[in-house]
Amino acid sequence: MLSREVKERLREYETPFYLYDMELLRRTVECALREADRYGYRLHYAMKANNDRRIMEFIASCGMGADCVSGNEVRRAIETGFAPKDIVYAGVGKKDSEIIYALRQGIFAFNCESKNELVVIDALARELGVVADVALRINPDIDPHTHSYITTGLSENKFGISPREITDVVGMLGDLRNIDIMGLHFHIGSQITDLGVFAELCRKVNASYRWFTEEGFRITDVNVGGGLGVDYDVPEMHPVPDFAAYFAVFAQGLDLPASVGVHFELGRSLVAQCGELISTVLFTKVSGLGDDIALIDASMTELLRPALYHSRHAIENLTGTGPERAYTIGGTVCESSDIFARDLSLPELRRGDLLSIKTAGAYGAAMASRYNLHDLPQAVFSDEL
Amino acid sequence: MLSREVKERLREYETPFYLYDMELLRRTVECALREADRYGYRLHYAMKANNDRRIMEFIASCGMGADCVSGNEVRRAIETGFAPKDIVYAGVGKKDSEIIYALRQGIFAFNCESKNELVVIDALARELGVVADVALRINPDIDPHTHSYITTGLSENKFGISPREITDVVGMLGDLRNIDIMGLHFHIGSQITDLGVFAELCRKVNASYRWFTEEGFRITDVNVGGGLGVDYDVPEMHPVPDFAAYFAVFAQGLDLPASVGVHFELGRSLVAQCGELISTVLFTKVSGLGDDIALIDASMTELLRPALYHSRHAIENLTGTGPERAYTIGGTVCESSDIFARDLSLPELRRGDLLSIKTAGAYGAAMASRYNLHDLPQAVFSDEL
Repeated sequence: MLSREVKERLREYETPFYLYDMELLRRTVECALREADRYGYRLHYAMKANNDRRIMEFIASCGMGADCVSGNEVRRAIETGFAPKDIVYAGVGKKDSEIIYALRQGIFAFNCESKNELVVIDALARELGVVADVALRINPDIDPHTHSYITTGLSENKFGISPREITDVVGMLGDLRNIDIMGLHFHIGSQITDLGVFAELCRKVNASYRWFTEEGFRITDVNVGGGLGVDYDVPEMHPVPDFAAYFAVFAQGLDLPASVGVHFELGRSLVAQCGELISTVLFTKVSGLGDDIALIDASMTELLRPALYHSRHAIENLTGTGPERAYTIGGTVCESSDIFARDLSLPELRRGDLLSIKTAGAYGAAMASRYNLHDLPQAVFSDEL
Repeated sequence: MLSREVKERLREYETPFYLYDMELLRRTVECALREADRYGYRLHYAMKANNDRRIMEFIASCGMGADCVSGNEVRRAIETGFAPKDIVYAGVGKKDSEIIYALRQGIFAFNCESKNELVVIDALARELGVVADVALRINPDIDPHTHSYITTGLSENKFGISPREITDVVGMLGDLRNIDIMGLHFHIGSQITDLGVFAELCRKVNASYRWFTEEGFRITDVNVGGGLGVDYDVPEMHPVPDFAAYFAVFAQGLDLPASVGVHFELGRSLVAQCGELISTVLFTKVSGLGDDIALIDASMTELLRPALYHSRHAIENLTGTGPERAYTIGGTVCESSDIFARDLSLPELRRGDLLSIKTAGAYGAAMASRYNLHDLPQAVFSDEL
């Protein structure tokens, strides 16, 4: 909860903007690192969740690695203080220019998603006279019980190397002298709240590790991805995700030699709760059905998740104290999908009230666009207020 | 169809990029203006479909007005050659700063969407010592039989002034001395292919016009919006939409005095077919279910429509000539929604093949984001190749 004094200071900034609680970010990152450290687990920040430079610099300063999905992300990770040896580069569609750039930086590993990608990385590494460290992304065919758009480990998905390609891959590895298969990578989806899904993942990881080892691979590192969900409904109840329970599932479920490095890629769980989108009520109106509608100056161009995933974010009226009414909260864009909430009870909204759209630190600013020629949203940090 | 020579020249540009056929744009705009001219209709380009400066400059040079939905859009319209007196400014959520800017430019009209917006525009106009010309956006409660996200004229939508607010508005107009209600505005949605929907709109327009006139308003202009659909399935069959049939529906259906100006807002129908997204095949792979997947270097960051609206675009293999196979076409982003097509038959795809994703001139580049830190796509124009 923001103090009244802080709320008043927010009025000095032009809305909409993202407000980041740097103290909550610190607590969250420290908690994740502390809980991971119990088991010697290595954490990488999945920067696709939020690539704000200040947030990245802070996370890098805490000693995490980075999980990148484009050449530009690798570049920004290095610029913001992540050591190349702590960077993994994943993604189903890496361009040659991106692979070459990452090879030159000496990153920790490429997460590879297809037989043909291995061939390309091998050829490019040969041209550069280097050996690429590669983790094979295995598609474990697990349903993570989350939104279909962010389900990434089912057989029909485009992600990972399927069992159908694995034997081909094994057969040709002798010819690929400029890649070293040192790892296995798994990532089954995002915003997973059922920890039992991760227990199932552990069983698949153990089986894959055994299979590859028996085939003669020397797997030194296993990356089990990320996916830990956050509380979008009542964020103040769970400002910091339950990392203790999350890592305990893996500690109990993984059956790997102690020498194998275990890596995680955390994005949403680190940065979602520290960010909120601050917006101003422009107009209230009544729809043809008699519903109260509040139009705010934010929209799907600052926060795409409600339109893209039908996701819901908790919303607070920061400045109003009247009796509650039920509102539809609409954004400025000329699309009916640009709705932040329906039938949401809030203290009466008046023109000029400030709203906070919570849990917006992940996949908020990172997905912003300039549709309708909107300006990109600015970032305001709690310790600068 | 691009010639083989042109296709080879496309290889000189880094993919993905938007390719615009300026000759097709010219034919389309000229056809729309010619068919509108038969009835004295006035056309405004709905620039939210594509705000590329060169495309806007061309359309402005043909004599169209502009339909804008933000202060930045009004600014760019003026910068690219649209006369302020031909600009309408619509949108459910106009900020004070945007309203003030538009008032200072002396635009043709504000399309107003709520009682409270009228009050604000009146107050701001009074401060500036001007009178704002205003068209009331009427929500006609018509189902346009299109995607729910781009349905904008149903009672439950956030758009327009509902019948519930109209009498309030009429009652207070005497107090709003710095606005002149000179127009009525309607817009029921986008990508409408059933022209019967527009005939129904005409009946609502006629009834609204009669009602307002009987209430003593002097309505000089009626804006019936846009919404004419284009052929996403077989674009080469309908490179130019059937503007003759479209305007004929209004000529037959509208029952307004000859002195009333009739305005249209065309976006998608003017620019969709002239644009295509050119991308390179990076890898092919086989999914766990045995499906062929082609991963290309474009993604939902360049063209959001498939992920956001489940929309389909025709795709052509520009460089392959082998036997056809069925493909899933996936983009580079780490989301399962980032799929351009499923089970699409194309001449066999090989690494390096160029693909054209058709009918991408509208709501393509305009909705692009830097998610995954992708670079924004560049524009290449056919007459510069």
